[in-house]
Amino acid sequence: MFNFIPLLCAIVGLIIAFTLATWVGKQNTGNDRMREISGYIHEGAMAFLKREYKTMAIVIVVLALLVGIAISWKGAILYVFGALLSVLAGYFGMNVATKGNVRTAAAALESGKPKALKVAFRSGAVMGLCVAGLGLFGLGVVLVVLDLATITEIVTCFGLGASSMALFGRVGGGIYTKAADVGADLVGKVEAGIPEDDPRNPAVIADNVGDNVGDVAGMGSDLFESYVGSIISAVTLAAAAVAASGGAFNETTAALFPMIISAVGILASIVGIFCVKGSDNSDPAKALNLGTYISGGVVVLVTIILSKTMLGSLNYAWAIVAGLLCGIIIGKLTEIYTADQYKHVKRIAEQSQTGSATTIIHGIAVGMESTAFPILFIGVAVIVAFKFAGLYGIALSAVGMLSTTGMTVAVDAYGPVSDNAGGIAEMSGLPEDVREITDSLDAVGNTTAAIGKGFAIGSAALTALALFASFAEAAGIQVISLLDPMVIVGLFIGAMLPFLFSAMTMSSVGEAANKMIAEVRRQFHEDAGIMAGTSKPDYSKCVEISTGAALKEMVMPGLLAIIAPLAVGMLLGVESLGGMLAGALSSGVLLAIMMSNSGGAWDNAKKYVESGVYGGKGSETHKATVVGDTVGDPFKDTSGPSINILIKLMTIVSLVFAPVFVAFGGFLF
Amino acid sequence: MFNFIPLLCAIVGLIIAFTLATWVGKQNTGNDRMREISGYIHEGAMAFLKREYKTMAIVIVVLALLVGIAISWKGAILYVFGALLSVLAGYFGMNVATKGNVRTAAAALESGKPKALKVAFRSGAVMGLCVAGLGLFGLGVVLVVLDLATITEIVTCFGLGASSMALFGRVGGGIYTKAADVGADLVGKVEAGIPEDDPRNPAVIADNVGDNVGDVAGMGSDLFESYVGSIISAVTLAAAAVAASGGAFNETTAALFPMIISAVGILASIVGIFCVKGSDNSDPAKALNLGTYISGGVVVLVTIILSKTMLGSLNYAWAIVAGLLCGIIIGKLTEIYTADQYKHVKRIAEQSQTGSATTIIHGIAVGMESTAFPILFIGVAVIVAFKFAGLYGIALSAVGMLSTTGMTVAVDAYGPVSDNAGGIAEMSGLPEDVREITDSLDAVGNTTAAIGKGFAIGSAALTALALFASFAEAAGIQVISLLDPMVIVGLFIGAMLPFLFSAMTMSSVGEAANKMIAEVRRQFHEDAGIMAGTSKPDYSKCVEISTGAALKEMVMPGLLAIIAPLAVGMLLGVESLGGMLAGALSSGVLLAIMMSNSGGAWDNAKKYVESGVYGGKGSETHKATVVGDTVGDPFKDTSGPSINILIKLMTIVSLVFAPVFVAFGGFLF
Repeated sequence: MFNFIPLLCAIVGLIIAFTLATWVGKQNTGNDRMREISGYIHEGAMAFLKREYKTMAIVIVVLALLVGIAISWKGAILYVFGALLSVLAGYFGMNVATKGNVRTAAAALESGKPKALKVAFRSGAVMGLCVAGLGLFGLGVVLVVLDLATITEIVTCFGLGASSMALFGRVGGGIYTKAADVGADLVGKVEAGIPEDDPRNPAVIADNVGDNVGDVAGMGSDLFESYVGSIISAVTLAAAAVAASGGAFNETTAALFPMIISAVGILASIVGIFCVKGSDNSDPAKALNLGTYISGGVVVLVTIILSKTMLGSLNYAWAIVAGLLCGIIIGKLTEIYTADQYKHVKRIAEQSQTGSATTIIHGIAVGMESTAFPILFIGVAVIVAFKFAGLYGIALSAVGMLSTTGMTVAVDAYGPVSDNAGGIAEMSGLPEDVREITDSLDAVGNTTAAIGKGFAIGSAALTALALFASFAEAAGIQVISLLDPMVIVGLFIGAMLPFLFSAMTMSSVGEAANKMIAEVRRQFHEDAGIMAGTSKPDYSKCVEISTGAALKEMVMPGLLAIIAPLAVGMLLGVESLGGMLAGALSSGVLLAIMMSNSGGAWDNAKKYVESGVYGGKGSETHKATVVGDTVGDPFKDTSGPSINILIKLMTIVSLVFAPVFVAFGGFLF
Repeated sequence: MFNFIPLLCAIVGLIIAFTLATWVGKQNTGNDRMREISGYIHEGAMAFLKREYKTMAIVIVVLALLVGIAISWKGAILYVFGALLSVLAGYFGMNVATKGNVRTAAAALESGKPKALKVAFRSGAVMGLCVAGLGLFGLGVVLVVLDLATITEIVTCFGLGASSMALFGRVGGGIYTKAADVGADLVGKVEAGIPEDDPRNPAVIADNVGDNVGDVAGMGSDLFESYVGSIISAVTLAAAAVAASGGAFNETTAALFPMIISAVGILASIVGIFCVKGSDNSDPAKALNLGTYISGGVVVLVTIILSKTMLGSLNYAWAIVAGLLCGIIIGKLTEIYTADQYKHVKRIAEQSQTGSATTIIHGIAVGMESTAFPILFIGVAVIVAFKFAGLYGIALSAVGMLSTTGMTVAVDAYGPVSDNAGGIAEMSGLPEDVREITDSLDAVGNTTAAIGKGFAIGSAALTALALFASFAEAAGIQVISLLDPMVIVGLFIGAMLPFLFSAMTMSSVGEAANKMIAEVRRQFHEDAGIMAGTSKPDYSKCVEISTGAALKEMVMPGLLAIIAPLAVGMLLGVESLGGMLAGALSSGVLLAIMMSNSGGAWDNAKKYVESGVYGGKGSETHKATVVGDTVGDPFKDTSGPSINILIKLMTIVSLVFAPVFVAFGGFLF
């Protein structure tokens, strides 16, 4: 009976998502020019997704065969199921987001700020509820259809599906968006001297498409993966939890508990989403924060009750609360290091007066410094969770952090929708006050994006850690000792992989951006009418370039993430693989935090100077901050976030194939 | 009887060092102007060292008391002994290096290239033989004076002395040199448009002093620490080696073996040093490489014989050879990523055509990519060493890598001497062909410096790893399991520390450089005669600023390195501390390789463009590469190399205080 609760709540979430999507669809779409532009963006984004899915289809087939042969065919089916749901979440969410942008602009034009906020936020909320709803739907179906023994054995394959799709979504989307952004900026803004989102810039549509495929679909697939990964980890550790509790509850209850918490989280997110209401004079950030706090509060309350009633002890609630608080704190810390109200961003702007070299040096220093507190708080959460509820507790803390994913992703996806709305307003030549409204929404979006990135990293860390514990359980190893040189060598290799992976993704952005730069220059050169505004640039050519480059460049880093654990597991053995996972996890989390926060801080240092300090726009100081921002683009939107997936995917690959490594691995020694 | 061999060989090394120093001192010092300028540099460098030693004296007293109270007073004496020898090595070496610079310039003026190479290299060789000679002298005295039981118990305190001095030497020297360099470049070259080493630049003397305190004294103290650290680790693991061999030899022999190998290394280095001879037309690099290969060859040969005769098996020789080869390979790999004959540097130069942002993005990508192969080769060396000779083997591989330290440091210290010689030639207005000779020597020095940095990182990694094994042995722990959440939390914290430490050192360079920039601007502003060449700038004021800033800024990162292991050991316990050391080791080595190689690649990309490609000097592409070079300065000369010390020092602090942590540690849980 209780088995059906997760599935039912997931369906409720999806129904609300559908309702919101319908509501967004019914909103006014403005004038013809706006519809034309948003049509380009929508088509470009959907075209990219479809081509991306074709590439991913190959991966799905290959991995499904591999899982089928090495593990079981039921596992292969679960793998495909997980992959498809991840794809669906991205598709639905982005479909609505690319419809919401023009409607947000139209609402700003016709009704003002509160309505515009409502449209933008509800567009994002569809993505949020799709991520959580489809994730829990999939696991809910598994729970109802399969028996517990089969679930604990092969549910990890479902996670592998989500994970492998997330990799290509994040990496491909990240490369796409930054190739377009850097290309549009370097030729358009710097060389030709035309403003952001100017319709004369051939790369402008690709840039706006990029916001969607990177910041909506890519980010959504990342959190979809963490969301299902954390639940799966808790489920696989349920048996261990029962043993540790001395049989205070049975395994079914222990496996059900995290899913019920997640189900509560969806309902809490729905409550939070409907609490977000803007007014003409208030800060939209306050409305968004209120929604987040309400969702979190509901989860905490219900968790305390359920922990006591279902598992007979409050201990499990503390693990969940530790994770939830840790997520909120990391978000706040991210804000302190990347928002211009605080000293760090101000300091980068100040240092930029001596040129772009000092901008870069201080930006990297800020990013590096910003790793300290998040790591300490993750450490506290891990210790609290473990002391109260063992390894199961660590998985629960990840579940807790991610329980309000519906709300978190809603806030996160609101950003690119507002950003796009501003782009459409600019390109359609809407009045200045419309642009002011969209700018005020977008400014909040930048902060929520930075916070969202911090949250994504924190949740990836906890999820990967929980999955790491599941891996050891699955491989039947009691100890992975750092005094074993094979483990140390694994640790070194693992710590190196995020560096190599980031090198690949950053080079990819460079390659793709160069192609874009050449194309934009070519169009400006061959048709003088473009700059004069008399002829239309060839937007689709730029969209085509970003799409092709992203799909080509995402393959190598993608293969690295899948092949590295297989190679180490088979060649060096399962202990060495454990070392590798720990090494990748620790260095990856740090690199991701550093890159995301350096990038965010540079972005806002530029905006801070643009607000008029140190000479404002066009000054030498401003030029230095533009260099920082351009370096920060692949840092914060491609390489940094992609590392989240790398560490989760490598762990789940190891987890799924653990029995194979135990049986055949380590044949090099 | 055999006990005296290390001491005797050390004394031979020191006598040769003294002979070479006397020879250098007898060389011609050129004209009055040259003497005046080199006098400033010599005084500035010595003044810095003396003030630095005063600050360090406080650290020595505090740590000696701590060691005395917590461990033993004999240990405290050994600690002070190690610290003093480290200081002496730096003092002697730098004294000769700052005399060798002007004599190299004079030799270039009077006799030509072969003589100039000889003077520069022999000046560096004094530093090399002082580092190895004093290191082995200290340990040789310990070996003769104390009995084996006492040695294995407290010889680590000697290492702590070397380590704590190295920290301040590397960090202080690194901050000094880059504050002066960035300050001199940004105002002199960029703002005032005067060339490098122009005597009108008030910061020019400080810049040349910086080459000595950073690249000679700082680098020397780093390798002094690795050198003694690797031997100490092997000595402490001797008992374990005896047990593992089934009693094939006794503990005294096992402890003596690494010291004899090091003694052989000193003799081999002397042979190598006297083989370095230049000619008018040949590449100086070939002469230097020949010397390195000869030293290495001698060590390999003798090691094979000694391994068989002393320990009854060739297994131990393979461990040593693995380390030695690994060091040479890492050097070569570093060259591939940082020298302009190879594609990576060319690629950065090419990318710089689209501006400084792409210079930075690609430089960081190259640095990140360059981590892969060194890590894999370190992994191979560790596995080979361990498979043949256990944990003792890992220590032996570090000993092997460092056995030819005398030669390696000689080659390394030759660079700044040549660099300084070029500066003196420029400032004294010597003829163009003199400058050409010093430039050709300096160009080789840049490559050897990059290779030396790679070697320093590789040796730090192996040494820290060996010391980590000693730590576990001393703490009596059999297992540090990654499945223990306390270990994972330690791992996270440890992985974070190199990031935080680098943030601190980079910010410090920024702070110090800003003070320098303000001072140089002030002097140019207040006295127009400086630029006209009619009045002399106030060099000493700039030297004073660099000195004061370096001493002030080195304190915080220094304290972090000492306090972090004490805090984690006491609060979280010895297992967590083990995790922390492994985390710091893995992320630190990667960050160090990345920062050093990014910096080296940017430096040479700039030089490559200056050679005439992509518009050459003064072009927009050149300006972009100058930004890269400026960012690279603190990367490669301050933060990157300082991480070496961080990981070694934290490990040796843990090792020395292991008994305390075991008895009282972990009281937080």
